[in-house]
Amino acid sequence: MKAFVYNGPGKMALEDRPKPEMSQPGDAIVKVLKTTICGTDLHILKGDVATCTPGRILGHEGVGIIDSVGTGVTIFKKGDRVLICCITACGKCEYCRRQMYSHCTTGGWILGNTIDGTQAEFVRIPYAETSLYPIPKGADEDAMVMLSDILPTGFECGVLNGKVSPGATVAIVGAGPIGLAALLTAQLYSPADIIMIDLDDNRLAMALKFGATHAVNSSNGKAAATVKSMTDGKGVDTAIEAVGVAATFELCQQLVAPGGTIANIGVHGHKVDLHLETLWSQNIAITTRLVDAATTPMLLKTVQSGKIDPARLITHHFKLDKILDAYDTFGRAAETKALKVIIDND
Amino acid sequence: MKAFVYNGPGKMALEDRPKPEMSQPGDAIVKVLKTTICGTDLHILKGDVATCTPGRILGHEGVGIIDSVGTGVTIFKKGDRVLICCITACGKCEYCRRQMYSHCTTGGWILGNTIDGTQAEFVRIPYAETSLYPIPKGADEDAMVMLSDILPTGFECGVLNGKVSPGATVAIVGAGPIGLAALLTAQLYSPADIIMIDLDDNRLAMALKFGATHAVNSSNGKAAATVKSMTDGKGVDTAIEAVGVAATFELCQQLVAPGGTIANIGVHGHKVDLHLETLWSQNIAITTRLVDAATTPMLLKTVQSGKIDPARLITHHFKLDKILDAYDTFGRAAETKALKVIIDND
Repeated sequence: MKAFVYNGPGKMALEDRPKPEMSQPGDAIVKVLKTTICGTDLHILKGDVATCTPGRILGHEGVGIIDSVGTGVTIFKKGDRVLICCITACGKCEYCRRQMYSHCTTGGWILGNTIDGTQAEFVRIPYAETSLYPIPKGADEDAMVMLSDILPTGFECGVLNGKVSPGATVAIVGAGPIGLAALLTAQLYSPADIIMIDLDDNRLAMALKFGATHAVNSSNGKAAATVKSMTDGKGVDTAIEAVGVAATFELCQQLVAPGGTIANIGVHGHKVDLHLETLWSQNIAITTRLVDAATTPMLLKTVQSGKIDPARLITHHFKLDKILDAYDTFGRAAETKALKVIIDND
Repeated sequence: MKAFVYNGPGKMALEDRPKPEMSQPGDAIVKVLKTTICGTDLHILKGDVATCTPGRILGHEGVGIIDSVGTGVTIFKKGDRVLICCITACGKCEYCRRQMYSHCTTGGWILGNTIDGTQAEFVRIPYAETSLYPIPKGADEDAMVMLSDILPTGFECGVLNGKVSPGATVAIVGAGPIGLAALLTAQLYSPADIIMIDLDDNRLAMALKFGATHAVNSSNGKAAATVKSMTDGKGVDTAIEAVGVAATFELCQQLVAPGGTIANIGVHGHKVDLHLETLWSQNIAITTRLVDAATTPMLLKTVQSGKIDPARLITHHFKLDKILDAYDTFGRAAETKALKVIIDND
């Protein structure tokens, strides 16, 4: 089968690989119909993710059709259409029983990281019964791909952790795909204002179309002052960090109001400054989270009911044999205006 | 009247001052029966608290008897015994209506900071109806003084923010009066283990008497490894920071388990490192809080019912005219083994 393989920092290729085989009774082999590229895949290609070693097939998102199931799998059968969750969950360990699937002791984020992933014609999914979801009849499969990772990540790490609530004022720092996923799902809780902050006017214009009430370009270094003036000097109830660098986390600390929450989504490579010399008395919370995808079934219903249309995040389509072009387009997002790209495999 | 006055960094005196006068209809003048010294008072004397200017009468804790009330005060009358809350709350502003009394727009922590405080024979209490509490008949007035600040601080900033719950594993870093107040109130929620961490063996021995299940002396630099080995390598559900320096906040980051909470109580003078490069994926929360004293009525009931005896925190008694000795004893706590000192005024 065709598979996109990470071969060490800066090295990647579409290769021929053997079709994956069943390994455990709980496994399913899934024929991948659609997958996508995540910002994390770009980090891997740079060599920034130590757990992902050369030779690995990348990808942790997608939808597919069950090709075969292990003897332990009773709820799926060949031919079923399934959503592949970015988080593999045994369903049995202490963390899984607390719905902290991201910290499953034998799973978590392993797909396209420590085991082969979805950017291929087929993928082996361990713990299939607790790591795949049936796709409802008539569902938009492009939209379903957004439920593998990006929508639950924006929602769980940003919106739920940030305690977004009716009437609240929310700032989202970073209008990339993850920030926009937070923006889409924040609206489920009817905040009064959602202020989108980014360096890129194109992405800010997109954010306004997606439901942001205000857009602030932070390239002049005055974003904090601007947001303070928009909020009677108080700051925001929720500041969502959707970039993963020191400067944006710093900005969130300047934006948060007394009693507010900073919800970190960004993947950080370095330590940051925490201004406890001012924040110790501000009654704030700072949260972190690797997505558990515990809300995937709920989000799937919001998509099916039309409350959210995550297909709006999709800007480009490629066939699997053009995946190198897809990476190039996604990797130059500022120029290509790419948000999420769909890789079709048919 | 006699009053203990801050006269600039390192300068203090017991002075004769005029008895305070009514200023607003909501005021009460209270004859102070008992007060105490807080670590914050020591910070003020060093010149570390910019809002507190020379000439200020210190003190934000105490019990007393109503001497007179303003025309707007209906729930207290001359002769009532009252608990003086360290937080002055108007009860009307946005923050007060959210029970965030610490951020009251015209109150908050003002006593012994921006207005004259309780280390005197009399004190003026603004917003008396929402800043004083009646003392139940027969209550131990020494114990009541612990309800002005230290008990709600340990409870709200440490135990509540830290989500201490039945069966949980808790670490408290710092076994000073605030850490011990967190220890006493943590037991209201029946955690499985409370691990007390400090540099001082005397304080750790005290902590074991107060209900800690384990004591770890961190002076060998191995506290994190010790706690990890006590928790099957996982770390603790709640790490309470009760010191206010970079090293103890760093230790809390090493101690917290995936899904856990770091509850900061300490007053920090400087920024600290936040290790988002590891913590971004650990599903943790970090909280800060200036005590709101919103739980004072509830804590008063737990004390009255015998569930907590905060008088155990009291190690020394002084008369008001010996308050300089009291400061000396409290300021050399490592030698004198002082926890809380009571200043009697009769």
